[in-house]
Formats: sequence, C-alpha cells, structure tokens
Amino acid sequence: MRRVTLLTDFGTADGYAGAMKGVVAAIAPNAWIEDMAHDIAPGDLAAAAWALQGYAFLFPPDTVHVVVVDPGVGTSRLPIAARVRDRFFVLPDNGILDAVTGEADPEAVVRLENLPQGPQSHSTTFHGRDIFAPAAGHLASGGGLRSLGSPVATLVRLDVARPLRTADGARGQVRHVDRFGNLISDIPAAWAEGGEVFLAGESIGPLLATYGAVQPQELLALIGSRQTVEIAVRNGSAAERLGANRGTPVSVRRRGLESSGG
Amino acid sequence: MRRVTLLTDFGTADGYAGAMKGVVAAIAPNAWIEDMAHDIAPGDLAAAAWALQGYAFLFPPDTVHVVVVDPGVGTSRLPIAARVRDRFFVLPDNGILDAVTGEADPEAVVRLENLPQGPQSHSTTFHGRDIFAPAAGHLASGGGLRSLGSPVATLVRLDVARPLRTADGARGQVRHVDRFGNLISDIPAAWAEGGEVFLAGESIGPLLATYGAVQPQELLALIGSRQTVEIAVRNGSAAERLGANRGTPVSVRRRGLESSGG
Amino acid sequence: MRRVTLLTDFGTADGYAGAMKGVVAAIAPNAWIEDMAHDIAPGDLAAAAWALQGYAFLFPPDTVHVVVVDPGVGTSRLPIAARVRDRFFVLPDNGILDAVTGEADPEAVVRLENLPQGPQSHSTTFHGRDIFAPAAGHLASGGGLRSLGSPVATLVRLDVARPLRTADGARGQVRHVDRFGNLISDIPAAWAEGGEVFLAGESIGPLLATYGAVQPQELLALIGSRQTVEIAVRNGSAAERLGANRGTPVSVRRRGLESSGG
Repeated sequence: MRRVTLLTDFGTADGYAGAMKGVVAAIAPNAWIEDMAHDIAPGDLAAAAWALQGYAFLFPPDTVHVVVVDPGVGTSRLPIAARVRDRFFVLPDNGILDAVTGEADPEAVVRLENLPQGPQSHSTTFHGRDIFAPAAGHLASGGGLRSLGSPVATLVRLDVARPLRTADGARGQVRHVDRFGNLISDIPAAWAEGGEVFLAGESIGPLLATYGAVQPQELLALIGSRQTVEIAVRNGSAAERLGANRGTPVSVRRRGLESSGG
Repeated sequence: MRRVTLLTDFGTADGYAGAMKGVVAAIAPNAWIEDMAHDIAPGDLAAAAWALQGYAFLFPPDTVHVVVVDPGVGTSRLPIAARVRDRFFVLPDNGILDAVTGEADPEAVVRLENLPQGPQSHSTTFHGRDIFAPAAGHLASGGGLRSLGSPVATLVRLDVARPLRTADGARGQVRHVDRFGNLISDIPAAWAEGGEVFLAGESIGPLLATYGAVQPQELLALIGSRQTVEIAVRNGSAAERLGANRGTPVSVRRRGLESSGG
Repeated sequence: MRRVTLLTDFGTADGYAGAMKGVVAAIAPNAWIEDMAHDIAPGDLAAAAWALQGYAFLFPPDTVHVVVVDPGVGTSRLPIAARVRDRFFVLPDNGILDAVTGEADPEAVVRLENLPQGPQSHSTTFHGRDIFAPAAGHLASGGGLRSLGSPVATLVRLDVARPLRTADGARGQVRHVDRFGNLISDIPAAWAEGGEVFLAGESIGPLLATYGAVQPQELLALIGSRQTVEIAVRNGSAAERLGANRGTPVSVRRRGLESSGG
C-alpha cells in the first residue's frame, strides 16, 4: 500500500480536505494519508510549488503526492497525473508540476480521464473530491498511471523569475518568506561562496555559517536548508525587520572583486 | 482495523487533539487516525455539522467519525455513539448527529456508559479525551456499539432554517461561507434549474455552469459541490464583495414566471 | 511498527513539517505519523512542553515523540533522544524533555550522533529534517536508542515557576491559556479542595464542580483536565474577560481559615 500526501489551499474547517481523505480511503482502504498543508494562500501556485519541492522527493518511491491549488477549476485546464523520479503526482496542469520537473523530467504524464467510480456525481467546482482524490486512490491502491488516461505532451509552465550569475556574484530575489520571517532567496549556495549579501541594495553582511554566529535578534545571511542564500534574524523575523516580501531583490558580491552596486 | 476521523474546535496547540489521538492509539494500536478539522469556531455546532456532512459518507463503511464540538460539556447533555448508514459516529448529543441523520435514520444510538479503561481519571471538562476517544478506540478496534451503553430513543435537534419552494422558485439562505468566500445556500439544485439568483433581494444573475463562464473577479451563481445554489466570485471572495454572512437570504426565481421580488 | 508524533513551531505552509514526514516515511515505510501541532508560537518552549505533557504518556508504549521547537538551532545545544516510561522522545536538549521527566526519570538519554543516511546533506538550519526525523525513523522502524549515540548525563532545565503551598492554601500562576481562553494554573487539585480562588488578588469564587454549575457567560473556578485549578467563563473566554496571561498570579485560600489577602 502506498502513502498519499495532500497539499491544498482548502483550509480544514469547510470539510473539503476531509472529503478528499474520505474518497482516497474508500478506494485505498489501507493507504496512509498525510497532510502536508491546507493553508496555502488561495490560488497561490508559487507557494504550493515551493512547499512541494521541499518534501516531494524525501518521501519513498511510489508515494502519491496530491496538490490541489487550483484557481483554474471550472476552466479548460487539464487534470493530470505524472510519474517523476519514481513518485506520483496528481494535480491540475497549472505549472506546479513543471516547477518540480524543472529538477527532473517526468517519466510519464497523463490527463485524468478514467477514474474509479466515486460515490458522488461530478461537480464543476470541487475536482479535489471528484477527480484528484479518486485518481490518487487508484494509484495508492497499486493502480498504474496509464490506465488513468492518455498521455499529455507539454506541461503548463509557471512563470518564475530565475537568478543570474553576474561578473562579481549573482542577482536573484526572495523566493519565499517562511513562518519565521526568513527571506529565502533563489541564489544557489555555489554562486555565493565567500560573498557579501545585499537585500534591495543594502548590505546584510558576509555569508555566515549558521544562526549561532550572531547574537539573538541580530541580522545575518547564511545558506538555508534548500541550499540557497537566506537572510534571517536569529530568533526573530527578517521579513518584519526589513519590510521585505517575495520578489524583493537579493544579490551577492564576491569580496575582493570590484563592486558596482548591490 | 478501522479508520478514525477527528473533528473538533480544540485547535492543535493546546495538545487536546493530540491527547485524543493518544487515547485512540492506546486502545486501537493499528488504527489510522485522520484529522478532519480542529479549527471549527469554538462551540459552532452548525459549522461542525456542515463539515461532517461533507465527508461522513465518503469514507468507507465502519469508519469511526468523532466530533467534539461541545459547548454543553459539564452539563446534562449525553455523550452518545451511533451507527448511521454503516458508519459510526461518536459525539455529544447536541444536534450534530441529527443534522446528519436528517439524511439517513440511525440504525442504533447508545449513550456512552461503558468505556474501555483509560489511563487517566475522568475530568468534567475534557470528555474528548476521557469519554469520546475511549469509545472511538473501542469501535476502531472492532468493538460493537451496544456494548458501549443503553439505547437512546430521541436525539437533540439542531435548529436549522429550511429552504422553501415558492410559486416561482425557492427561498433559502446562506448556509455556509467557505475559506474562499463562496456563499453556499441551502437551495437544492433541483429547485433552481433555469432560475435567476438573488442575494438579499439583489440579482446575482442566472445560474451558470461553472467558474469559467465569467472572467476572474466577476460574480456568478452556480451549483456548488453540495448540489445547492452557490454565489461566488471567480478567484475572489463573494462574502467580502457582497458583505454577506451565514443566514443572509438567498432566493431563486424561474425565468418566464412573473416575479414578485427577490 | 511504531507510531511517530510531531510537535513543531514550523507551521505547515512552508513544507517543513512535510519534509520531516517524508524523511520518517522513507526510513520507516509503515510508520503511522501523527500531527500533534505545528502552530506552537515560534520558539515558545514552555508552550511546547505544555502540549507534550498533555499527550506524551497517553500514547502506547514505544511511541516516538518528536518535538522540534528549537530556537537554539545553529548553536551548541545538543540534539538528543531519550526513553522515558517506555516512550521515545527525539528533540533538542533545551528543557522540554526535562519538563516531561520532572514527572518521570528518563531510562536513557543519548546525543544524536549516528543517523540513518538521509537523502539530503546536512543543513545548519533545519535539524528537524536532517537530524530529528532520521533519528525518529530509526526508532520507528524498531531501532534502538543506544545505536544513535553516546549517553548524555545531564539535561538542560526549563525555568518554570513552581506553585507553593501556603498556610491557608496555595500560590501559583497561570501556566497556560488555551484556545477557549481558559486560564489553567499550576496549582494541583489536592492543594485547592474546598478553597476560594483568586486571580491577581481578585476573588473568582469557590471551586465549583463543572461548567454546568454556572450560567453561560459566567465566570467560575474549577479543576481542569490536568487536575489543576482552572479559571473559565462558560462558553466564553476568561482570558479576554479578565485580561490575564501566562504568568498572572493565581492563589487559593481554604475557607474557614483566616485570610490574609489573595
């Protein structure tokens, strides 16, 4: 029996996430069902992609990852399932899968056409319950991808800004602000070694090894858990301290090189 | 081994929901325990009933649904367990079960008198841990309903307004506002076909097929996932746009019939 | 297969809790993974200890309790695992375990040195994923404590104020404010029997049996589910009514004894 993870923007109080679990459990009675998050901001595809990238490939092979952040429900966007690096993904074709497959090409992608019969008729508004959960139940109970539908050739892409190497370092942006107010950039550790970090042109200081290198409530830059440059306040919130958000520019300049502005 | 679902207004940070899980796991060591929601507004019976109705019968037979939204804890209200359409329900007798059995008569209802011995003495304030979780553990490990206590003849009813058919359509109200700000009414789809929808007397427009029928940020009326009339803003919040709440009047007038006000 | 519980201050939306679940599932593919809470206030050790005490010993023997509220990540604080009263605990050595072992001496405590190989390299910022989850997976799959590292002799203590018996009763403080606004003190029931309860010197009244002893919205004092004195408003919030917080003084005076101020 396989493990199923759920990532949605449904919250929990409305019973939508519960309904999805019920459908999965009815089709795959021995599946483990794991909540990832249900508090993604409504329709925030970038936030869902960020979370998914953080856990997708830590789960064992054959895990079924369901992601229903779906501002396009009720439009022509396709419901799909895919197999990427030995894990299954069940979600709308809205760019989230592409954000993951940027790291690993999918072995197969199908549009969801043939679903196990669910206990309710199809709605036009709740594909989490009526399409994605039945497909996940099918996969969780050992079913194959190809019996769910016909192959899809191209995936919708999520428009995500990319970091750039520069003559003396790198330029990127805050990719995610976490619950602690850490500002997590998209600049890879390998581009930043030995550099000085800037947020919106203001120096944060040199890259340090870890939080313990500064005193509580002090600002620092370090390499975070996604192996990118992160700006943090030890035991505090860098987002609050600096008034920064997703998209705020971050740059790194290697020391010893001539600097030309952050 | 059976699956146990938990719906409470306990939040999670206080450890109350965790305590219930521990008691269930101690009695039924192989049970799957599934969170439905713990963020029901404190004491909001109607919200709990709404959520429960959304998932209860999607789970497979023999699932044990525990609901502890219990403003009457410490009064004479009965703790009960019931079997309805092959599922178990464990909860206070405060109207929530009646809201579900409005759709399906219970096969049996008992008051909770004989519980598996728990690791803690009874409190007067936390029946979730001391009464409902032990009963759920008993059922989850394969125990029967009747060994838990003596039959209960009548259930407390939840005072819920009912929609009415009118000469030219139907009158009802907003039954639930969800996380997206969708206004979900109690008017069944079958009463609304081909009609124009009004909120508090103001026209929303004709019933449309799905969100894709309007542009993002536009208002529409459609049939929602519970098969009732719903008022929504595509990729936005109808509740915010219209200042509506649970209880706001909704009506439907069939076109072609003489109208006499929303 | 053992059950793993997770208590963190990570929230869920950032995918940190999901990452921990993935690592546990990869090492212990048949483990049940149970969320306790992820909404502990960032770095609030006392709140984490409070929650943990509420459920730790209700779970069956061999349960693996993981607690990652870790303001000291990136400093020299030790990551540890312990066995206390037949349960496992995996967490930073920051006083939370001591709060639990105040009730029961640990059978063994080790520092986490030898971890199952994880799929990612070590970060300096996310020990939940890189150290605590691998250790929990090892224990959940039946592994022993001692293979994880060498024994630790002394534990960091959490500085928690203790209640005192007085000539005519007891003095303590609000130890926790729960979601309902109940003010839960540290004064044990046995010290309070037959007494009058005071909050910050103002009388709340005598200890009553349960919520039903007063009308809705009325204030009362009673014995709560942790068997300590609690101040509550029936179907309302005592914290809001009285403007009280964690740390607000609570006292009890036995009736019939001469009183000298609350």
